[in-house]
Amino acid sequence: MAILQPLIDLAALTYLHGVRHVVLSPGSRSAALTLAFSRHGGFQIHPVIDERSAGFIAQGMAQQLCKPVVLICTSGSAGYNFAPAVSEAFFQQIPLLILTADRPREWTHQFDGQTIYQSELYGKHVKKFFELPSDYSHPDSIWAINRSANEAVNLAAQVPLGPVHVNVPIREPFYPSEGEVLAPSLSIRLIHQTPVDRLISVSQWNELLDEWDDSKKILIAGGQCAHSALLNETLSKITDELQVPVLADSIANLAGNESFISHHDLILSGNDDADLMPDLLITYGLSFVSKELKTFLRRNPAKNHWHIGNDGVWADPLQSVTRQIAVDPDYFFSQLFEKIDYQLFTENSEPDNDAGYLEKWLVKERLVRRKIQDFLLNQTLLTDLTAIDAVLSQLADGEQLHVGNSMPIRYVNALGKPDLVSVFCNRGTSGIDGSLSTAIGAALTNSCPTTLIIGDVSFLYDRNGLLIKSLPENLKIVVVNNGGGNIFRMIDGPARQPELEEYFETRHLHTARRTAEDAGLIYFSVHQMEDLATQLAAFRSCDNTCLLEIFTDPEENRVIWKQFKQLLA
Amino acid sequence: MAILQPLIDLAALTYLHGVRHVVLSPGSRSAALTLAFSRHGGFQIHPVIDERSAGFIAQGMAQQLCKPVVLICTSGSAGYNFAPAVSEAFFQQIPLLILTADRPREWTHQFDGQTIYQSELYGKHVKKFFELPSDYSHPDSIWAINRSANEAVNLAAQVPLGPVHVNVPIREPFYPSEGEVLAPSLSIRLIHQTPVDRLISVSQWNELLDEWDDSKKILIAGGQCAHSALLNETLSKITDELQVPVLADSIANLAGNESFISHHDLILSGNDDADLMPDLLITYGLSFVSKELKTFLRRNPAKNHWHIGNDGVWADPLQSVTRQIAVDPDYFFSQLFEKIDYQLFTENSEPDNDAGYLEKWLVKERLVRRKIQDFLLNQTLLTDLTAIDAVLSQLADGEQLHVGNSMPIRYVNALGKPDLVSVFCNRGTSGIDGSLSTAIGAALTNSCPTTLIIGDVSFLYDRNGLLIKSLPENLKIVVVNNGGGNIFRMIDGPARQPELEEYFETRHLHTARRTAEDAGLIYFSVHQMEDLATQLAAFRSCDNTCLLEIFTDPEENRVIWKQFKQLLA
Repeated sequence: MAILQPLIDLAALTYLHGVRHVVLSPGSRSAALTLAFSRHGGFQIHPVIDERSAGFIAQGMAQQLCKPVVLICTSGSAGYNFAPAVSEAFFQQIPLLILTADRPREWTHQFDGQTIYQSELYGKHVKKFFELPSDYSHPDSIWAINRSANEAVNLAAQVPLGPVHVNVPIREPFYPSEGEVLAPSLSIRLIHQTPVDRLISVSQWNELLDEWDDSKKILIAGGQCAHSALLNETLSKITDELQVPVLADSIANLAGNESFISHHDLILSGNDDADLMPDLLITYGLSFVSKELKTFLRRNPAKNHWHIGNDGVWADPLQSVTRQIAVDPDYFFSQLFEKIDYQLFTENSEPDNDAGYLEKWLVKERLVRRKIQDFLLNQTLLTDLTAIDAVLSQLADGEQLHVGNSMPIRYVNALGKPDLVSVFCNRGTSGIDGSLSTAIGAALTNSCPTTLIIGDVSFLYDRNGLLIKSLPENLKIVVVNNGGGNIFRMIDGPARQPELEEYFETRHLHTARRTAEDAGLIYFSVHQMEDLATQLAAFRSCDNTCLLEIFTDPEENRVIWKQFKQLLA
Repeated sequence: MAILQPLIDLAALTYLHGVRHVVLSPGSRSAALTLAFSRHGGFQIHPVIDERSAGFIAQGMAQQLCKPVVLICTSGSAGYNFAPAVSEAFFQQIPLLILTADRPREWTHQFDGQTIYQSELYGKHVKKFFELPSDYSHPDSIWAINRSANEAVNLAAQVPLGPVHVNVPIREPFYPSEGEVLAPSLSIRLIHQTPVDRLISVSQWNELLDEWDDSKKILIAGGQCAHSALLNETLSKITDELQVPVLADSIANLAGNESFISHHDLILSGNDDADLMPDLLITYGLSFVSKELKTFLRRNPAKNHWHIGNDGVWADPLQSVTRQIAVDPDYFFSQLFEKIDYQLFTENSEPDNDAGYLEKWLVKERLVRRKIQDFLLNQTLLTDLTAIDAVLSQLADGEQLHVGNSMPIRYVNALGKPDLVSVFCNRGTSGIDGSLSTAIGAALTNSCPTTLIIGDVSFLYDRNGLLIKSLPENLKIVVVNNGGGNIFRMIDGPARQPELEEYFETRHLHTARRTAEDAGLIYFSVHQMEDLATQLAAFRSCDNTCLLEIFTDPEENRVIWKQFKQLLA
């Protein structure tokens, strides 16, 4: 048996568990992993030289696939460059299987090159850390590697999804000899994890239904999650038939029902309307983008607040949770609807909750939609807001939109997403660090037209994502270049400081042009409103990976954003 | 007193402890730190948008200053982007004071934006981690912040130097109100740390001198360290007067004595000459670059091996240490020389050690130097080796050379550094990730001509270092572009694999031109030997920050490097 056989088997096992994509960064210590995965024959291998981008590319892929993607790097600081993506994946619950090659443990801190303390490198930002043994010859070592690999892949793929880190110390020699065939062992042991359903008992349902029945104003609010057809259909029926308002940030990815509330950010802007306060609040999903929604619900806590989510996290960002209900939202809402619907049918009655409550939200929602339309019609300046609105208006059903932090996602969320377009944004840590690479990873696997809207600082920060060999042709990048971190001008604190431009916005004169040319992207740019439509049309109809840079003025952006936020004032 | 007074005082304290430079990345949560340091008036503030580059820029500055440099970032994944630089600084013993702004602890993992687990973010790669309280009003909190700040700055600046992490949770409101003056408290308590000398007692010296006297073949070998005039002078006298060979890698920064051995990498290439094996080996400094030296000394362990270094690390990379002598090498060698010199003088005797041992090394050293000269004279191809040799030959006394990992430093070390030029390389973790930013940081503070020699992959990896507002004019960048990670072709393992070009070298067609233009660098390039001299002359005489890109062929590089390594075979 080859010395490195356990690693060859680890790759084969990973395949048997359904993993198909590997993002790897070059290295010598990691060669055994590189070869084990690439020679297996069943994986798509994506080489990426900058580990920071590699991490986010893998995360973008896994986000689309909902299956673990393997990340491989060599020993030393390489693994630390994965860390920003690992923390984002952890909080956004995206499955990654991170394999960091290492020198055997005894060489740590011996001043001998590319060796750092790799154990627990990502702290609490992985679901579990595994340290493989560095001697592969003892039967117990072989057993441990096999068992750990089985556990690691399963754990990453198990709800709540997330990153798992396996540190792989590798002794020399770690290259196969000439002509050596790297074949998996004949009897690799695959450990299946039987999926187990998490359900609510009848008596518990009754308790919940009693609480539901006792509530007049029931509000459902969705945090970040991928589009789910079943959940979408159920929530649509709940709002239509049970007259319960359903609020959804753009990253909650609800679609197809005019009655879904999506402009709560403007509706609630500086406005504590008692009519809108819920008695029972039901939330699901991860983070909310809308700060107005969060502060409104914190200032006016519902009497009862159920949070639905099988993630084991007792998160309480609205500071009002009274029940953690750790089941899948698909299951919860479909059961909930069925039970209430049946109850109403058998009792031949109307819902107990206040039908006027939905109507109050809808009146505001429709008003905002009209006001937004009127407001935008009258704009003649090319600003981030008007530019992003124009980009959104061009997106077709079934396309994907990726959005950078922090202003772009605020614009998209305030404008409201195009109905049948899925929206993704790195809201796990809300960093500016990997939005471009995440979109690249997504476009590599989603096979649908994918548009990224990103700010200039965030684009420059992550431009190394563009160094991969073949960029996906279904990716279109829109850079809104306002010459700095424009968000700091929007928020009151930094805007008042004399240091605004130097230390907060960090104003610059960089453009995306040369970086785009280096990456072989077709480059479009626009400086004024008159040219936007034609440039946007050319950009949209371009068959290659392309980039549209829209230049705007930071102060004009501030003024129009302020007006926009006060549309209902 | 202002709510944020303890942070204003922290900045003032840091100044009182002698810190003068702050590298900060923009953020809102970190605003209180940004303003406390920038409004103090005594600091030079360097804003850098990409935290990964910011970390390495700060490291390059601190490396030159031998004093802590402050690093500030906002909450969330920002701090993780510092991690590669933090680990490099830790293993290279460079002082950093890392201040990561954080949300108050209770908001961790609450899905509420830019919040990760920041406690102990860098694991074992900092000398100590401090968690400040998030309530600044209680007298104990104020005491704790003051005490921790004193300890943190002192600890970073204390041998072994290194990074210290202070996590700073900050509650809203964290912006000063209009017109508020940020003045330090009148009575900030400064805690001085009285320096303590680590000395060796007379009886211990006698034990060491006995061991010295019992040794025939004594060899001194220097690992990575900055140039020290005293150490240099002492080692020069030791080799001249005591006839002890002193081996120094380029990053050991010895100079001014023809008898220092610097070509051990070629002398020992595949050669276990019994005449060269020491009885007593004395090492100091951090890592060695020369793999030949390391394997020679591991295969032929000295009977006694003293390691001199006040770093508290029981490192033993040559696997032969018999005495850890935790004192400063300056003190150790000057005392050692004095004691032996005095002994010889009073006894009117010759040294006991074998004078022929030095001569055997010197015969080889002189032979290699001649062979290198002859070899290079006959080269007509533009390769990494010939190009780097040409660049080295142009460097003047007192200049600084920074070198990237991994091939460039191997070339420089094998060729031998220009005598009175200091050489720096990130050999703490030996990563390719921050060499450009480190050199930028160094050039910002060293006020001498500074040349960086870096490979194409390493340059691209770290190109965001060039996004800072004003690049130092004393910096000249040489990119040797061989279209990929050429090192993998040099080492036997990957070179034999069919995956060499795709997954190891990761061949690419990128050049540095557009990146250089974006950064406002004057760009020079050369594709053939005939043009090297003129382009190099133009590059050297250019008054602005500039970049010379030298294009070479990876296979030609491999062939010439192989021939070169076997010059003595």
